[in-house]
Amino acid sequence: MITDPLRDLPTFSDIESAARRLEGVAFHTPLLRNEALDTAIGAPVWIKPETLQRTGSFKMRGAWNRISRIPEADQAKGVVAFSSGNHAQGVAESARILGLKATIVMPSDAPQSKIASARARGAEVRLYNRNGESREAIAAEIAERTGATTIKPFDDAWIMAGQGTAGYEAGADAKAMGVHFGSVICNASGGGLLAGVALAFEEIWPYAEVYAAEPEGHDDLIRSLAAGRIVSNAPGSRSIADALMAPEPGVLPFQIHQRRVAGGFAATNDQLLDAMSFAFHHLNLVVEPGGAAALAVLLANREYFAARAPVLLVLTGANVDPEIFAQAISRPPLA
Amino acid sequence: MITDPLRDLPTFSDIESAARRLEGVAFHTPLLRNEALDTAIGAPVWIKPETLQRTGSFKMRGAWNRISRIPEADQAKGVVAFSSGNHAQGVAESARILGLKATIVMPSDAPQSKIASARARGAEVRLYNRNGESREAIAAEIAERTGATTIKPFDDAWIMAGQGTAGYEAGADAKAMGVHFGSVICNASGGGLLAGVALAFEEIWPYAEVYAAEPEGHDDLIRSLAAGRIVSNAPGSRSIADALMAPEPGVLPFQIHQRRVAGGFAATNDQLLDAMSFAFHHLNLVVEPGGAAALAVLLANREYFAARAPVLLVLTGANVDPEIFAQAISRPPLA
Repeated sequence: MITDPLRDLPTFSDIESAARRLEGVAFHTPLLRNEALDTAIGAPVWIKPETLQRTGSFKMRGAWNRISRIPEADQAKGVVAFSSGNHAQGVAESARILGLKATIVMPSDAPQSKIASARARGAEVRLYNRNGESREAIAAEIAERTGATTIKPFDDAWIMAGQGTAGYEAGADAKAMGVHFGSVICNASGGGLLAGVALAFEEIWPYAEVYAAEPEGHDDLIRSLAAGRIVSNAPGSRSIADALMAPEPGVLPFQIHQRRVAGGFAATNDQLLDAMSFAFHHLNLVVEPGGAAALAVLLANREYFAARAPVLLVLTGANVDPEIFAQAISRPPLA
Repeated sequence: MITDPLRDLPTFSDIESAARRLEGVAFHTPLLRNEALDTAIGAPVWIKPETLQRTGSFKMRGAWNRISRIPEADQAKGVVAFSSGNHAQGVAESARILGLKATIVMPSDAPQSKIASARARGAEVRLYNRNGESREAIAAEIAERTGATTIKPFDDAWIMAGQGTAGYEAGADAKAMGVHFGSVICNASGGGLLAGVALAFEEIWPYAEVYAAEPEGHDDLIRSLAAGRIVSNAPGSRSIADALMAPEPGVLPFQIHQRRVAGGFAATNDQLLDAMSFAFHHLNLVVEPGGAAALAVLLANREYFAARAPVLLVLTGANVDPEIFAQAISRPPLA
């Protein structure tokens, strides 16, 4: 039971509570299979396509679980968030449904589609320069001035519990089908989803190994797990995975990562683009660069994961500009 | 109960039989919702994404239901089929699973991805010139010479019953959720899927109206329904919807269409490309031009279908070359 979401760690029952709260708002996304992917890996892979989630990413889950718990007295003051894009959609959509004002601080180089979508959902977007301004400082100033509730992207127990419903659903659906996961691969930036999924699996599939997928140059979680403490990415390091560019793992999520995450793998830009092409040609799903990291990691480590099958693969987001997608799908798909 | 699939019409129990036969081979595709589509139509739309079916289209359903019923004595002689692409995948994949030799007669201008996929599934592809050669004659010659069983694309009761399982699944899933469809929109070429879905709905949702979606210039079914008899498309008429270019409705499917189809709408090439772009930007699904006809029709007739909601939208296929897809998604999505 969470009393202070900025200090407490969520438990399995918080995920169950979030799942109830998400009913009728977020989608229960399906578990998919694909014969080309099974053949490529040589083992069964189950796909959890959060690309088909409301707002095009899993971020709707945590945002709704957090925002719908704002006390009535604070609702009129609205919400403020900073986000490279997908958290922005979840916050904007949740606020729109609840009739709350949302202000989102987004980098000026975020994908145009993400900026446009946040505005289309009624949010006010405040652009900032990724290399000169602090998004935290801008958001803090807005919160201070307006009294708006800050909706953190991952360092919040309700956010983690909400994201964990993706693992909860997949775990329950698999159990109903008699499928016993050997491992799960999940993209990680601040690591809120990964922590939530790990927590759900701790209860439902305690013997399944949980793996993180990160972009090369932003493998802060892999290095943090190795170091036993939070370490950051080099400032200014870039990746095409705009969704996975948090500077370091969140303080709260990392406590769960340390307990439950078995390891992690990093994907290069080329591997991310190849994974997007594979998803287009074989899975027939639109996946954004950051959303494809787990697939890239799976395709680059086939024997490793075939030995840990059935694999649950979480595709986290689909909000990509058409130019980047066209570039990716022009690559011949990996066999 | 079908005794001669080339003469008999299927019944609802043939669809139930097909559904049992498809278990563990074809996927039970989910029912999806999308907030952008609901908003665009102003009414609830449920999406049946056969784009996520094994082989990337619904054609796997009918092909498996037909090919898995070939008597053992005939299996060694293999199968032969003619197809613009998606039926080819279903036939090739079913034959591969069963260890049967498959020969597919495909137009030389079929999408490269479809030709390559049929070959990758182990089929022998015989290309023909769409404007000079008769695919029926070529397939008949092969069947005569080899004794192979001809797998017709739609004029076959087992094929229709197999395709009908898409409607059967969607109908049963909706019933379990308490959803009562007002209408269903389904792409039509020879009309095997449409006939199967209409037959499934006749039993499960008798009051839901069934609509056909066709490409402009290939609206043979719409004109046939109006004329009360089968009429053909003008020879040489083209569309980007390569999957929907049968010259006229099948004789067997049309008997079901006449009984159960309430009407049809045709989509222009521009509308098909816009629908593909909408699917990319909002649904996050890859859809081929022919697979997008029903979505194009829905987006072009919003009030009509809002009055017949909830709408079931069948997305039939995703096998599209990257160049065409890149062209489609460069269009700004319809609001």
